[in-house]
Amino acid sequence: MHVGRSYRLLDFAVWSRRGALYVLIVSLVAVAAYSLPPLAGFGIPWPIVAVLGTSVALVAGFKNGQVLQRSSDALQAFAQIAAISRLLATLSCDFLEKDVARRVILRHLAWLTALRYSLRRPMPWETVSQGVNRAFRRRYYQIQEDLTTLPQALTPLLGTAADAIAARPQPALALLHLQGEEINGLLKQGAVPTQVYSELMKLLRDCHDQQARCDRIKNTPYPRQYAAVSAIFVVIFATLLPFGVVPTFATMGGADGVLGTVILWLSVPFSVLIGWMYFALDLVGESTSNPFEGNANDVPISQISRDLEIELRSRLSDTELPPALPPVHGIAT
Amino acid sequence: MHVGRSYRLLDFAVWSRRGALYVLIVSLVAVAAYSLPPLAGFGIPWPIVAVLGTSVALVAGFKNGQVLQRSSDALQAFAQIAAISRLLATLSCDFLEKDVARRVILRHLAWLTALRYSLRRPMPWETVSQGVNRAFRRRYYQIQEDLTTLPQALTPLLGTAADAIAARPQPALALLHLQGEEINGLLKQGAVPTQVYSELMKLLRDCHDQQARCDRIKNTPYPRQYAAVSAIFVVIFATLLPFGVVPTFATMGGADGVLGTVILWLSVPFSVLIGWMYFALDLVGESTSNPFEGNANDVPISQISRDLEIELRSRLSDTELPPALPPVHGIAT
Amino acid sequence: MHVGRSYRLLDFAVWSRRGALYVLIVSLVAVAAYSLPPLAGFGIPWPIVAVLGTSVALVAGFKNGQVLQRSSDALQAFAQIAAISRLLATLSCDFLEKDVARRVILRHLAWLTALRYSLRRPMPWETVSQGVNRAFRRRYYQIQEDLTTLPQALTPLLGTAADAIAARPQPALALLHLQGEEINGLLKQGAVPTQVYSELMKLLRDCHDQQARCDRIKNTPYPRQYAAVSAIFVVIFATLLPFGVVPTFATMGGADGVLGTVILWLSVPFSVLIGWMYFALDLVGESTSNPFEGNANDVPISQISRDLEIELRSRLSDTELPPALPPVHGIAT
Amino acid sequence: MHVGRSYRLLDFAVWSRRGALYVLIVSLVAVAAYSLPPLAGFGIPWPIVAVLGTSVALVAGFKNGQVLQRSSDALQAFAQIAAISRLLATLSCDFLEKDVARRVILRHLAWLTALRYSLRRPMPWETVSQGVNRAFRRRYYQIQEDLTTLPQALTPLLGTAADAIAARPQPALALLHLQGEEINGLLKQGAVPTQVYSELMKLLRDCHDQQARCDRIKNTPYPRQYAAVSAIFVVIFATLLPFGVVPTFATMGGADGVLGTVILWLSVPFSVLIGWMYFALDLVGESTSNPFEGNANDVPISQISRDLEIELRSRLSDTELPPALPPVHGIAT
Amino acid sequence: MHVGRSYRLLDFAVWSRRGALYVLIVSLVAVAAYSLPPLAGFGIPWPIVAVLGTSVALVAGFKNGQVLQRSSDALQAFAQIAAISRLLATLSCDFLEKDVARRVILRHLAWLTALRYSLRRPMPWETVSQGVNRAFRRRYYQIQEDLTTLPQALTPLLGTAADAIAARPQPALALLHLQGEEINGLLKQGAVPTQVYSELMKLLRDCHDQQARCDRIKNTPYPRQYAAVSAIFVVIFATLLPFGVVPTFATMGGADGVLGTVILWLSVPFSVLIGWMYFALDLVGESTSNPFEGNANDVPISQISRDLEIELRSRLSDTELPPALPPVHGIAT
Repeated sequence: MHVGRSYRLLDFAVWSRRGALYVLIVSLVAVAAYSLPPLAGFGIPWPIVAVLGTSVALVAGFKNGQVLQRSSDALQAFAQIAAISRLLATLSCDFLEKDVARRVILRHLAWLTALRYSLRRPMPWETVSQGVNRAFRRRYYQIQEDLTTLPQALTPLLGTAADAIAARPQPALALLHLQGEEINGLLKQGAVPTQVYSELMKLLRDCHDQQARCDRIKNTPYPRQYAAVSAIFVVIFATLLPFGVVPTFATMGGADGVLGTVILWLSVPFSVLIGWMYFALDLVGESTSNPFEGNANDVPISQISRDLEIELRSRLSDTELPPALPPVHGIAT
Repeated sequence: MHVGRSYRLLDFAVWSRRGALYVLIVSLVAVAAYSLPPLAGFGIPWPIVAVLGTSVALVAGFKNGQVLQRSSDALQAFAQIAAISRLLATLSCDFLEKDVARRVILRHLAWLTALRYSLRRPMPWETVSQGVNRAFRRRYYQIQEDLTTLPQALTPLLGTAADAIAARPQPALALLHLQGEEINGLLKQGAVPTQVYSELMKLLRDCHDQQARCDRIKNTPYPRQYAAVSAIFVVIFATLLPFGVVPTFATMGGADGVLGTVILWLSVPFSVLIGWMYFALDLVGESTSNPFEGNANDVPISQISRDLEIELRSRLSDTELPPALPPVHGIAT
Repeated sequence: MHVGRSYRLLDFAVWSRRGALYVLIVSLVAVAAYSLPPLAGFGIPWPIVAVLGTSVALVAGFKNGQVLQRSSDALQAFAQIAAISRLLATLSCDFLEKDVARRVILRHLAWLTALRYSLRRPMPWETVSQGVNRAFRRRYYQIQEDLTTLPQALTPLLGTAADAIAARPQPALALLHLQGEEINGLLKQGAVPTQVYSELMKLLRDCHDQQARCDRIKNTPYPRQYAAVSAIFVVIFATLLPFGVVPTFATMGGADGVLGTVILWLSVPFSVLIGWMYFALDLVGESTSNPFEGNANDVPISQISRDLEIELRSRLSDTELPPALPPVHGIAT
Repeated sequence: MHVGRSYRLLDFAVWSRRGALYVLIVSLVAVAAYSLPPLAGFGIPWPIVAVLGTSVALVAGFKNGQVLQRSSDALQAFAQIAAISRLLATLSCDFLEKDVARRVILRHLAWLTALRYSLRRPMPWETVSQGVNRAFRRRYYQIQEDLTTLPQALTPLLGTAADAIAARPQPALALLHLQGEEINGLLKQGAVPTQVYSELMKLLRDCHDQQARCDRIKNTPYPRQYAAVSAIFVVIFATLLPFGVVPTFATMGGADGVLGTVILWLSVPFSVLIGWMYFALDLVGESTSNPFEGNANDVPISQISRDLEIELRSRLSDTELPPALPPVHGIAT
Repeated sequence: MHVGRSYRLLDFAVWSRRGALYVLIVSLVAVAAYSLPPLAGFGIPWPIVAVLGTSVALVAGFKNGQVLQRSSDALQAFAQIAAISRLLATLSCDFLEKDVARRVILRHLAWLTALRYSLRRPMPWETVSQGVNRAFRRRYYQIQEDLTTLPQALTPLLGTAADAIAARPQPALALLHLQGEEINGLLKQGAVPTQVYSELMKLLRDCHDQQARCDRIKNTPYPRQYAAVSAIFVVIFATLLPFGVVPTFATMGGADGVLGTVILWLSVPFSVLIGWMYFALDLVGESTSNPFEGNANDVPISQISRDLEIELRSRLSDTELPPALPPVHGIAT
């Protein structure tokens, strides 16, 4: 997630250059078609193109709103996880024996770690592996989950059990089940008051709920048919745009002369500018739709998890805390 | 649900070809009307058609947003069911006797199975039986619930009771009632601590809530009057469109000559392209509005249920697990 | 609620004919004003009318979205009532003595019946008593609550107490209070475990919540000031529309001759078509805004209640069950 | 809240006349500027004004949607309060001694009364004190809270304690605190089963939640910066509108002659009509944004509270019930 | 938060003057380009600019709606905190020993104080440090959190422990953990009935939830990519606008003469007016997107917290209460 003041216009332009290039090529074709025989004078009436412009903005605008909800949903899940984690630490430290409390809290952190790795795995519809995104990432930031493997990350938390857990089909769920067993065991042994058992069960239930919520967002893309329609609208609009702009400019410039030529050629950068705007509108939505893919617009789950780890371990009086993960080049991961 | 990178443009075009064909025919009529006596020169002023374009995009855009909420709602219900199922497994394995736990968990899976079959039954307003959808389905994927019957699917879970349950008017509800009886019985016999009874009742309540939510979405269509207005807007717009495009192009092309004829005929593919866009916009909403119909845009309930079955049965230490259901041609069912 | 494939275009057109007729009359006036002295040539510039077109679509589109939320809200309330009813049956049958359980369940059904009658009573702002809606209803379906009176409907459920309850100012609330007394009595007599009392109180609380939700929707209209603004926009647009269309067509048709006359007169059906579209857009919202009025677009509360009655009575092993209420002419009530 | 069939067009027009008057004056200026030297022929090109029209409708439309949420939120709070009140009556009557139950229920009604008075107090941003709203109110309805003072209203409920409570900075909160003390006292004295204490605490918590919700809506306006932008858009549009309409009409009317003059002057009522529409669109939102101000579009809190008072007092077997508050001239307060 | 009648137009114009200045400069360039050789007659066809106008309004309108949700979310969090605080006071005063109750309540106020200071710290993307906002703030109001430091503010509540707490990395969380320990201790010592422990835990959980919610809003900006796209749209539109307006006015004014020159120059203020509108639309959203930054559009957390402090301390019978924080120049902080 970009947490700086704003994207720099240059970065933004470089990142979204593909659309601009496309319109540039179409524009040159449009100027050629307009200027050269046999089609000299060819163009598409602007009023027709105009209707598409509004429709494209509408469709892309709706899409961006819907996509933002996915992103907010993901962010809320991790905010809720933070609240759960703190309550769990409070209850564990106050009611459980010291080594049990330590085990429960470290297992909770292990769950968060496994969840995090699972959410960062690539999915077919994600855009992070596209050239522009990979380039941007290479230049500006790196994802924590790419630097170590899950077993490595789990070892400090689970000790020798780490490899076995990491080898399970769904390590996060396996850890939640172990957590459940431990909590249930506390009730069976009468080791905690019944009210505290209820509180712990609420936390476990909440962990399951938040995991199901994150999995839902991770496992299902923004409907591909909606994304397709939005992309098709933008491409068609951007293709027709120069054919509409060129004759409109030409008419304005008058029949001929230097001014006429200047204005005719001015239609090229002008088309590129407008076409790029609409491409960028769509692209921005597309790159927000997968909040866990490792993108610059992601929910910063590595950072949130690290902060929670520092918080919870310092409650256990651990002194060797991992360092915080500050944003790099304004991007929190 | 399509879980690939994107719909292929060709598939998309083939799937939505009906609208394009319709506009093609209207376009030819419009060219004829414009070119031939007695109506030579006939057309509809473009500015009038333009107003409709924006309105159509608005109405269809609103519709698509509303329809997406139905789909998200359905997806959330199944995410919630996943969370419930895991908690139920944890509680059952830890507090119930081994055979009771097995019975409870298998009955839960049976409930999920019965719910799944019930959600896949056809409803009058669903579009899955339309030609284009049937063709798409035949080519690319099949629905699990079409391959076996409910009694067959229930037998491995319920044994001999399967047929009797499947014959009930609402098998899923019958199973939830049995589940309720079992849980209540545990309290009456003092077989579980009261806190655990409360937790189990919360899960039962949640099962009822999610079933009521799914049934609500399944049993009530997106308001037909809204769908009708959206469809009527698109059809009227697409009908008037060519009559607006033809004279606009013709005027641009100038009086006559080769260029004039080329441009006149260019209005045909052009009208088809624009008309198709708006048809596609509406069609995409229509085919998202019934998230359980067995469509390529459905919530993948077969897959989610199968994953849960594998998960829960492996907790019961079953070794003969059913295979997972990977997406076929990028479509998860 | 219409649960067929779609509204038939003819039914839809007949139902919404008033707007079309209005535009027809205005169109004839516009043609006359344009053609005849002393105002020959009079018209309203189309670009001005065009601006209104987009605004009308926006305003009506927003309204339809807001109105749909009322309808969804109502539907959710009844889905929740279904979930409550089933849990109540489970708890009653398992924990209460047989005759108490029977009394509680029948009283619950009586509550649902009283609620249903209350939700069907006419309100000043409802549109169901308008001519077109009454005609549509006479032809296609009837409302269960019009066929019998509340005392008649309550008698099979409450016996001799039915008349007294039906005479209370708010029969549904009176029944919920009786239900509350019974449940509280169970706790006071120690007839149920305390956990079960808590579960029963949750259900009672939920009944009160859902009733308050339904009453809120029933007792407060979609803000009349919003409905007024939307209606005024549509009427003004539809009034100006023909005066904008006629000169635009006339200009296109050229000065005179047969084609000129044909095109001039073509502006009439054309105006009617467009005007009707926008009237229909507004009308569709208006007729969705009161989900309990007995409209063809209502939440089918009679059907949902009947289904629940059949379900719950068969749990009581009653054999003389009332028949289900299938949709008539595609309309579920 | 207007609960009649619809606003009468005349009332609506009178109420929103200010905008129309403004456009009338601007129109006359525009006709003068166009007709008279030295600026003869002056106007603003309509296409430029047209762009503003759509933007204004969008901005005002978004605003109206956001404002409606405030209103719905307020309505939901009072629906929830109705549900709480009924449950409180049930629990009190069944578990508390008769005089305690009476005290608790009357104090609850006193809380509702104090809340009501607090919600009706004027705030700087509210529009109810504007001329048009005051005039409308004088003619059509009156607010219950203006007729008596809070101490007078509390006396029948609290007896001699009324004045002391009314003198507290926040009487409603003071009453909730007393209610809390009473409920806690019941637990301390063992006067109610612990389950019932939990139920009563849930109700108290809900009272606090609903009060905080109402206070939030009352104490914070719809963001003034949003209201300002919307108002500025409308005023600028309405100011430019006539300068765009006059030349457009004039061009259409042709150079001169009687028809030319007629059409030129026709642009005045026409501008007024359109300008008024957009003013009304904004005004309607503005007058919906404060749901507790005593406006004709308010949530009818006096009526809801009175209905609850009648309901609860009749449960206490009181016979001298206050009369219901029927809508006056279709306006429920 | 502005809680006056409305922003004064002058303040609003001064505050948003940057956009107007930008358009002014571009306008002068456009007039020069149009009037002077070698480009005399240069302009951009208005219909092309018109399409952008609608798109800009759409994109900025969507943004403003999304940003408002952040703001409402923040407001709801503080409303919920108010409800929690009052319940906590009720429970503490009734069930805890006097000095324990005092300690719990003061610690709660300390938590609120620490939260408040944390929410006021500057973030890179916040706009409060921009020139115009700083100027507005200097003239009209000041932020409570700028006047004292956290240790100073905590001392009256925590005594000597204040400095140690304030030095912790997250003072608010440290205080919640202490609160949790105290509540857990009460259960362990059997100092409160178990029901009361459950109620207190619900409040603690709610404190954690609301803190996580506030932190989420504070720590994550409105997606920078969305803000960037919206800003780019506005800047491009505002840049092209004058080049579209100038020739359109010039054409209308006719070839030359005094009127022609007047109208040509009139296009400058006109462009500035329209360009400013759209800049203001975007700016208003931008300055609403960070509800805790100390802006004039903020959630008034200082005021809400102070009111709660007065309320809770007067329940503890403290007599030296801090003064309320009335709005200054109509701005509540």
